[in-house]
Amino acid sequence: MSLIVQKYGGTSVGSPDRILNVARRILETQRVGNQVVAVVSAMSGVTDSLIELARQVAPHPTEREMDVLLSTGEQTTIALTAMAINGLGGQAVSLTGAQAGIVTDGFHTKAKIANITPKRIHSFLDEGSIVIVAGFQGESFEGQITTLGRGGSDLTAIAVAAAIKADLCQIFTDVDGVYSCDPRIVKRARKILEISYDEMLEMASLGSKVMQSRSVEFAKKFDVIFEVRSSFNDQPGTVVKHETAGMEKVVIRGVSVDRKQAKVTISRVPDKPGVASRVFNEIAVINVNVDMIVQNVSAAGTTDISFTIPADELPKIEKHLGPIVAEIGAGGFAAQAGIAKLSVVGIGMRSHSGVAARMFELLGKGEINIQMISTSEIKISVIVDEDRVDDGARIVHTGFGLDEVESSENEIGFIESGVPAPHKLRRSG
Amino acid sequence: MSLIVQKYGGTSVGSPDRILNVARRILETQRVGNQVVAVVSAMSGVTDSLIELARQVAPHPTEREMDVLLSTGEQTTIALTAMAINGLGGQAVSLTGAQAGIVTDGFHTKAKIANITPKRIHSFLDEGSIVIVAGFQGESFEGQITTLGRGGSDLTAIAVAAAIKADLCQIFTDVDGVYSCDPRIVKRARKILEISYDEMLEMASLGSKVMQSRSVEFAKKFDVIFEVRSSFNDQPGTVVKHETAGMEKVVIRGVSVDRKQAKVTISRVPDKPGVASRVFNEIAVINVNVDMIVQNVSAAGTTDISFTIPADELPKIEKHLGPIVAEIGAGGFAAQAGIAKLSVVGIGMRSHSGVAARMFELLGKGEINIQMISTSEIKISVIVDEDRVDDGARIVHTGFGLDEVESSENEIGFIESGVPAPHKLRRSG
Repeated sequence: MSLIVQKYGGTSVGSPDRILNVARRILETQRVGNQVVAVVSAMSGVTDSLIELARQVAPHPTEREMDVLLSTGEQTTIALTAMAINGLGGQAVSLTGAQAGIVTDGFHTKAKIANITPKRIHSFLDEGSIVIVAGFQGESFEGQITTLGRGGSDLTAIAVAAAIKADLCQIFTDVDGVYSCDPRIVKRARKILEISYDEMLEMASLGSKVMQSRSVEFAKKFDVIFEVRSSFNDQPGTVVKHETAGMEKVVIRGVSVDRKQAKVTISRVPDKPGVASRVFNEIAVINVNVDMIVQNVSAAGTTDISFTIPADELPKIEKHLGPIVAEIGAGGFAAQAGIAKLSVVGIGMRSHSGVAARMFELLGKGEINIQMISTSEIKISVIVDEDRVDDGARIVHTGFGLDEVESSENEIGFIESGVPAPHKLRRSG
Repeated sequence: MSLIVQKYGGTSVGSPDRILNVARRILETQRVGNQVVAVVSAMSGVTDSLIELARQVAPHPTEREMDVLLSTGEQTTIALTAMAINGLGGQAVSLTGAQAGIVTDGFHTKAKIANITPKRIHSFLDEGSIVIVAGFQGESFEGQITTLGRGGSDLTAIAVAAAIKADLCQIFTDVDGVYSCDPRIVKRARKILEISYDEMLEMASLGSKVMQSRSVEFAKKFDVIFEVRSSFNDQPGTVVKHETAGMEKVVIRGVSVDRKQAKVTISRVPDKPGVASRVFNEIAVINVNVDMIVQNVSAAGTTDISFTIPADELPKIEKHLGPIVAEIGAGGFAAQAGIAKLSVVGIGMRSHSGVAARMFELLGKGEINIQMISTSEIKISVIVDEDRVDDGARIVHTGFGLDEVESSENEIGFIESGVPAPHKLRRSG
């Protein structure tokens, strides 16, 4: 008998019919011999309606009260889900975050889980019940209702799985896994069957919106293996876990595209210590999210600093950067939208040299100009023109051997076989 | 500084605008120098929507889960009300039933309050906050969410008022008090300014739907003086409290009409011990609510037993009473709809004899035939034809001096002066 935590997102429980489907799926999981804890989100749309209600009574609602308000969304779903299971002949009880023993700090609307005391969960499981836990919420040490902020229900599921030492945590969502690239861009993108926490984190930070980084980080920290899969079919999804030797044979796990970026270059910056920190401190003050930062080696006592930001923050930069530039004695600045970031991610690149060279070569052959480059241990990102980024993604996806093979049966063998041979990537010498 | 508990029903908090109005009223109560605890219901319509949702996932939802579901209704209102107060510049915090320390037994959907530990309420009051408490809900000894059933929010308010030793408990509702009769029947019905718990209980049981009996009983038991008043105006309402000497000077406090009754008479019932109990036990089995029961003295070894029931339960009686009548060896039974109950209520009748006689005399003069009579210490009820009951109510209302006087200024003097002189009612000798 396995102990399984399942998490169902807002779309999966978005209507009474869908809740009944979820109830059937949970019951089936129990029927085949498992103990099941299901974490559920608010029905899709409910949270937005509650926020709208709040706006109608107060322009800036108190955060403590927002938590009291929003937590009703998940509470509604746990009750309906438990009822549905009971109505189908099963035995289920619902628990709010507080009842489930989820204790958080006191930072309303963005609380962090401090600890979980799963006594009630265990005692209901022991008497043969399915336990339905409200995602996204907890109780502070002072007994206040708190919510966990974005991605909170995923986090609840993973934290509960860690606390009760579940054998598996399944994150059911409206996508059926993590893909090697956005299938809207690369038609032959394939579902990734296994991915390491670090790769998943890079994919998440690159805008692959399957899951928030914090949940992946939590899972990594507490060794929770989880699977991202669809609640609308029975296909296996993507399993996220610590890297294994086999994983490293795949050099590139996925290709990611971030659109609507802008590039800002400050020219002739005096090349002395502390200047860069002053620039980016000032930018932080005006609350602009800087992504990539590139500084070239200096020539003649000055240097150029370039960075990228979301394009919609460009007006703020254009309004406020002038004085900062003047203050540090730089020559001036230029800002440009219409660019995008193209990244490849894979833990395999740690043991396979020449990945960057191969990527640049592929893009070069495709006549796609690289404007900026930034690398980490398991990621290479380049900035290109936004109107060429899709072409670039397809070229890189194919070039690194990520395209789906014809027969879906072969998909299982992907991790071991669907890779270009290492020698193709390794630089000679 | 007084400590005031206010309760706002579903209609009073039925929209964001109304919640803002309630917030202003609460703030004003605090501004003039009071500490305020407000108990709120679910926004009108919300509970019904939740019940409908439940029906869509399960035909007979588990009661435990119904409580988890329905309690979100009040939780939504407490958050919105606290936000609204904060948005208007006040300082408010919300508490669910569990957080407010309301502990109940474990009977889901109809729990009874076992005790209240108002530690959190006091500590928030002490720091200058207004405290908004969710009505209708509590937490069982085992930590389960419970709801209190019909009239639960009124009960919460009165129980909280008792627990924190409030100086006053104000029940804000969509009517502006208890009237001497339904103003739709008697145009000159007047608002009752003070009424005793016992009179209020009789009015409640007579279908004056201002408040459930259980809340009034609770208030009586724990000496909570409360006022029923409108949340839509600033008029004083009706104060309900233990009877005072002054109250007894009013012989009749109010006149009540119960329509849609039916009368059933079982004829030639053998006049021996235990027969009546068998009849009414059998009727209880078929789940019919019997109201008045009248048995005349017997003649020739048999008697007639008459009783009244809600008219819509007549089919059940007609279906099931035959065998019961046969079993006890009675002659037969006759059932008749189209009757109504007309009652007068007043603690003053305890010290003023002749009230019944006066009532019968008034009805007789109005040529309204009395079919059954039932009396209690502070109530006289008669059964009349339904199509004459409004006339009867007006005649009795006027006859007992309850009609509104022209100037509303005089209303204040009503309790002392608006009564027929006792000698008119007292029988000579």
